[in-house]
Amino acid sequence: MKIVLTPIGIIHSPYKKKEDIPIRGVFMPQGVGTIEVFEEYEKGLQDVEGFSHLIILYFFHKSKEFSLLGKPFLEDKLHGIFAIRSPHRPNHLGISVVRLLERKGNILKVGEIDVFDGTPLLDIKPYVPKFDERKNVKIGWLEGKLNNQNKS
Amino acid sequence: MKIVLTPIGIIHSPYKKKEDIPIRGVFMPQGVGTIEVFEEYEKGLQDVEGFSHLIILYFFHKSKEFSLLGKPFLEDKLHGIFAIRSPHRPNHLGISVVRLLERKGNILKVGEIDVFDGTPLLDIKPYVPKFDERKNVKIGWLEGKLNNQNKS
Repeated sequence: MKIVLTPIGIIHSPYKKKEDIPIRGVFMPQGVGTIEVFEEYEKGLQDVEGFSHLIILYFFHKSKEFSLLGKPFLEDKLHGIFAIRSPHRPNHLGISVVRLLERKGNILKVGEIDVFDGTPLLDIKPYVPKFDERKNVKIGWLEGKLNNQNKS
Repeated sequence: MKIVLTPIGIIHSPYKKKEDIPIRGVFMPQGVGTIEVFEEYEKGLQDVEGFSHLIILYFFHKSKEFSLLGKPFLEDKLHGIFAIRSPHRPNHLGISVVRLLERKGNILKVGEIDVFDGTPLLDIKPYVPKFDERKNVKIGWLEGKLNNQNKS
């Protein structure tokens, strides 16, 4: 079975090099980008401006291979690809929560962006705490490794 | 530009009919399913068992069309597809947070499942509150509509 997707837009960000991209955008809220939704999909943006945060789904277009084990940014040990957030995953799908600063037609100005400039956009969903947040969470190998990261 | 994906597994759930699926799995934590990751990807599951919650990305295989405006479960007004979580989206991509109950090899037993039985799995990512949660969130048209839903 093959699933064929078509980008619905392009994400423009300040990050042209891998070294510039923050581990997650929430740790660098000053990183502002724009999401250009292709005009044919603009009607689908109706009412997004009521949401402060959006979940974006995108294609890790710079990653040309995948590996079932990988070393994350935050340590040197190998972990399974499904236990880390590396782009080098079987389907090269990425998700991020961004802060919606402004909408002008088909252009969304967003904060907390953490992707390469030019990343193909696949979907946008409203971020809803009652759907997307959980309590009493265990974070496995990441336990104790995020203490030096600032949360916005 | 076309992006071609290959399912990495299948999600088995108790939900065979649309009417049975909860609005979100978190509102029906007793809904238990299994995620079958194809054996060729099993190595990528190393260390997922340390996480209490996983984000799953999947293909809404029952949705054969899309609409840029849609009526969500929770009300009768139309909203842009990117302001709702309907499956009838341009790329038919879905995401859910599930609770990991047990891993046996390539099989994950999960709670809070909210997808059709047989849904093609595209990716699994660890759920990390510091990456995925936000404060001071505005939820647009959903404001006031979730008060009768139980949060786990």
